[in-house]
Order: sequence, then C-alpha cells, then structure tokens
Amino acid sequence: MDIYLIRHTQTAAAKGLCYGRSDIALADSFAREMEALRQKLPELAEDCRFYSSALSRCKRLADSLSDEVVTDERLLELDFGDWEGMFFDDIDAEALNLWTRHFVDVPPPNGESFTDLCRRAGSFWQELIKTELSQAVVVTHAGVIRALLTHILKLSPAAAFQFRVDHGSLHKFQYSHQYTYIHYLNL
Amino acid sequence: MDIYLIRHTQTAAAKGLCYGRSDIALADSFAREMEALRQKLPELAEDCRFYSSALSRCKRLADSLSDEVVTDERLLELDFGDWEGMFFDDIDAEALNLWTRHFVDVPPPNGESFTDLCRRAGSFWQELIKTELSQAVVVTHAGVIRALLTHILKLSPAAAFQFRVDHGSLHKFQYSHQYTYIHYLNL
Repeated sequence: MDIYLIRHTQTAAAKGLCYGRSDIALADSFAREMEALRQKLPELAEDCRFYSSALSRCKRLADSLSDEVVTDERLLELDFGDWEGMFFDDIDAEALNLWTRHFVDVPPPNGESFTDLCRRAGSFWQELIKTELSQAVVVTHAGVIRALLTHILKLSPAAAFQFRVDHGSLHKFQYSHQYTYIHYLNL
Repeated sequence: MDIYLIRHTQTAAAKGLCYGRSDIALADSFAREMEALRQKLPELAEDCRFYSSALSRCKRLADSLSDEVVTDERLLELDFGDWEGMFFDDIDAEALNLWTRHFVDVPPPNGESFTDLCRRAGSFWQELIKTELSQAVVVTHAGVIRALLTHILKLSPAAAFQFRVDHGSLHKFQYSHQYTYIHYLNL
C-alpha cells in the first residue's frame, strides 16, 4: 500500500499568528503551488482514496485532486486552545516559554499537547493501513505529518521536529507486511 | 552548515552478491545517473568541502563533483568479513538467518555489526559538524546514510532500515546551534 502525505500550501495568515484549529485561508499563490505539487505527484490509481483535514487550507487542495474526499478529525492541526488566533507576541511570555520547553507533554491552555496529537494521528494511521487500499493520499498539516513520523519510526516525539515539512510538500510511505518503508520525505 | 549526503550510483555487481568493503565497479549507467544527480544538486559554494568513501563506487562520483576530495575510512560500507564477495545463497543459512535477526549487534564472521557502523559514522559526523564549513558533500553508502540517520535522530538502529536510500539519491541536512534539521530525504 502506497501512502502519500501532503502538507497544505501556504496560508494567508499574518506573520506571527498562532493558529492550529483556526480555519485560515490559503495564500493567493495556491494555483502556482498546486501546479508545482502536481509535477511531483505520480499518476494516481483509479481506486486511490483521498483523505483530508476538514480545514479549508487542506480541503481545497484535496478537492483539487479528487471529487471524493474523506475528511477525518484526527487529521486536524494541533489545537492551540485559548491561544488560537492570538499573535505569539501577545501570549503571556512565561506560559509560552513553559509550553515551548515542554510541548510534548504540556498543552496550551484548553488545547492539546503534541503527545495528544501523536495519539490521534497514530490512531488514523493504524486504521488506514488496515484498509488494504493500494493507494491513499492524505492532505494534512505539518504537526500531523511529524506526529505520523513519530508513530511510524517510534521516534522520541521532540525529534520529529528535526524534519522540515514544507508547504505543498510530498512524503511517500509504503506499508506492506506490517512494515512501513519511507520512500522519501519533503519532496 | 548545509550537509548533502549522496549514495553512489548503481553498481555492476551480480544480483545476490554480498559486498560491503569489496571494491565493486559502477554500472555502465554512471554517466546518465550522474546527470540525473546533477539536476537535483543545488549550486555548490566555492568553499564546499567534499568527502567520500575510498571505494571506487563513491570516489568516482565525488571526483566528478570536485578536484579535492577527502576520503575517510569511517565512510566505508559495512564490513561483511568472511562473507565479502560470496553470494547470499552460498552463505551458511543458519549463520545468515542469525545475522538477519540480530544484525544490529551481531557482526558477520570477521565483519562488523550495524552498531559498529553507527559508531564510526557517528564519529565522522561529530567531527564534520565541528568544522564550521558552510557546505559539505559526503558521498557514501546506504548503510552509512542509515547509520547517520540513527545518530542524528537518536533512532533505534533497526528503524533506520525503514528509510529507503536509492542509488544516486540526495539527502539534505542543516546543522546549526547544535541542532540538525533534515531538509529532505531520498530525493
């Protein structure tokens, strides 16, 4: 089973804005970025299944690839809770500092920790590999892609942040006989 | 500091041959594969330093990129000891099976274990990041690239085999402030 993960293209968010669950629109460069992504994608099979985060920055891309897109809550970006929509500069410095040092286990106020994200992303992955599809495309967020790498490689969660995950990037995995093979990352 | 790892292009080895330290020649497709690699490589800086395994399948590629190539013993492929140059089919099945299950800690007879390889590859890496070069290109083997991923991500050694490392593939890392960022793998 071939699984392609795609991160959404650039957003129109102002620099320094804290957003995860917030539904931020895509940048005007979408058409150009989508074309670059298409160049990287292989020809997809007729029965390829498409999954997406329900947030429009992912869904718009997924809808450009297929008429039938399954949205899944477990593919949403990290929930920053009370910090959603705030500028990082306006967040209480001490609370932000605590979170930065302990984000693996500590959630933002009323949000979720990276471990929470790993749990739900991992649950999606375990369900996906049981489908026995020949191909799947998953359009999601940088946090989810890192969480999946943590799950697949049994990485220490913080190490997943060593992986750069660009806007519009493509990551290919192959699942077979209970083994996940990583073909390439961040193409 | 930007570090590019390159795996040598295809070899002329017969299918099923066991080789690590053996100096196996490259396939006739070298010129074509080299051209494909050049397309993937960015423009390299004047002061970029080139490192290579001394084995001709790496050195030939490195010499095509630079007139000044530093060879380093720690960049050699796994030493298969007594099995070098044998066909896997001719190796004692029980010994091979034992090694396959425990290659992380168990060396082939008179060879080295994957842990040994991780140790020497890690030692090369630690020296490299201390050079404060702006750019380095390292031409080496799949085993060494996996060993470096183990070292950089503090991965369980067996998990490094989840990464596909193609002939002529390019892997980009960035080292800065004691942190290694992985830009892409297996381009």
